[in-house]
Amino acid sequence: MRNIKLIIEYAGTNYAGWQIQKSNIKNQISKFKTIQETLETVLQKILQENVKVIGSGRTDSGVHALAQTANFRTNSQLPVSKIQKALNSLLPKDISIKEIGEADEDFHSRYSAKSKIYRYFILNSETRSAFLNKYAWHVPYRLNINLMRKEAAALLGRHDFKSFRASGSSVKTTVRTIKKLSIKILNYTLSAQRYKLIVIDIESEGFLYNMVRNIVGTLVEIGRGRFQEGSLKKILLAKNRKQAGPTTPAQGLFLIEVKY
Amino acid sequence: MRNIKLIIEYAGTNYAGWQIQKSNIKNQISKFKTIQETLETVLQKILQENVKVIGSGRTDSGVHALAQTANFRTNSQLPVSKIQKALNSLLPKDISIKEIGEADEDFHSRYSAKSKIYRYFILNSETRSAFLNKYAWHVPYRLNINLMRKEAAALLGRHDFKSFRASGSSVKTTVRTIKKLSIKILNYTLSAQRYKLIVIDIESEGFLYNMVRNIVGTLVEIGRGRFQEGSLKKILLAKNRKQAGPTTPAQGLFLIEVKY
Repeated sequence: MRNIKLIIEYAGTNYAGWQIQKSNIKNQISKFKTIQETLETVLQKILQENVKVIGSGRTDSGVHALAQTANFRTNSQLPVSKIQKALNSLLPKDISIKEIGEADEDFHSRYSAKSKIYRYFILNSETRSAFLNKYAWHVPYRLNINLMRKEAAALLGRHDFKSFRASGSSVKTTVRTIKKLSIKILNYTLSAQRYKLIVIDIESEGFLYNMVRNIVGTLVEIGRGRFQEGSLKKILLAKNRKQAGPTTPAQGLFLIEVKY
Repeated sequence: MRNIKLIIEYAGTNYAGWQIQKSNIKNQISKFKTIQETLETVLQKILQENVKVIGSGRTDSGVHALAQTANFRTNSQLPVSKIQKALNSLLPKDISIKEIGEADEDFHSRYSAKSKIYRYFILNSETRSAFLNKYAWHVPYRLNINLMRKEAAALLGRHDFKSFRASGSSVKTTVRTIKKLSIKILNYTLSAQRYKLIVIDIESEGFLYNMVRNIVGTLVEIGRGRFQEGSLKKILLAKNRKQAGPTTPAQGLFLIEVKY
């Protein structure tokens, strides 16, 4: 059987995430489809066989991806270029297959992944943007970026990130390794409009549920002066979700790369 | 009475344009509201009086604006900063008031305008984008940008643009002056994804109905080799809509500046 790898771009706005989340099922059945379901339905149409699509990991409802990685096995002999063309012509316009290729027999999007990079966009301006409302979180307060950077350094490396894990979720261990964390300012001018974006990238071999959004929420509390200097290290050591800042909205979050 | 000027940003996707167009009324009543109606409804709520909002010009259904300019008269004594805050809190998220200010008594968004700049975005890549599908027109063919630039030069200055006017529309004169026309390539890299955009800016003291979209459609026909060198000048002189290229989709078009 062939093993085929996909790099998928999607706007998560109209989807119930990559795959139905436990928390979604608990609270309510979403009226939206998942990305995985949508891909499987279209692939089955193209390949005329049952297809199981494996993603590198779940993304939540409303979260976007520039490069979600997935793979599936098939008996079909259709060339990959034809599969890509068929997918892009049949998939909804907010899902696009950017790359496709034959993968090694043992390649598994989730188990083979070495690390993932998530990016969070904050629109830091007085007025909101008509265009970025689904792709960034609007924060109208002045943020002390240098302090945010200084504090964020405490998160680098191997730690117990229990304070940044969604309350109610359960995993075997809450120890994770953050390989990289950067906070950049992106000034973008489009005609008369100036957009100031704060771009937070976090790379880890694995993330806890809501970990990025809880870290960003905590960093913003620090940036706007609600949490004192030195508080991030204390929050980390407290291993208590209640000590950290709020969970930021899903729309600012993008899965931007999966490394293998 | 005070005369108040607004600079408005909007994503046109979910609106029937700035104002109901004659052509819309002829064909069907849109299920969507217009931007103008939406603004007037919210302003009347805030100011507790009837308000008539005058825009610099109409934008079609699906067309966006980074800086539409409008003005309205009011007896209210509410400071402009409070009006702006109230508008941005009550308006839908895809409309944003970027600037507000007191204008001279005789300022009129439409009659006082010296020129307008429209921008058209073409996503020139093999695969479409999940994010740009509502903000650019996807053209998968190779385009000869240098030829497009060379041909476009024939449009500069004062000409009869009848060939680029929507068929069926009627105006007193089809003579207009194009002050500037530029075609730029914008390469944008976001993590692993590379986006090649072609950005066409056209400045004129006035535009005919669908003029920008018909010019862009003709330029793309030239760029992909369907129309020969020298054809743009011939099309212009023909004063015949049938000679020009197709009308490009509304979603790539942005009103980016109104000059006074």
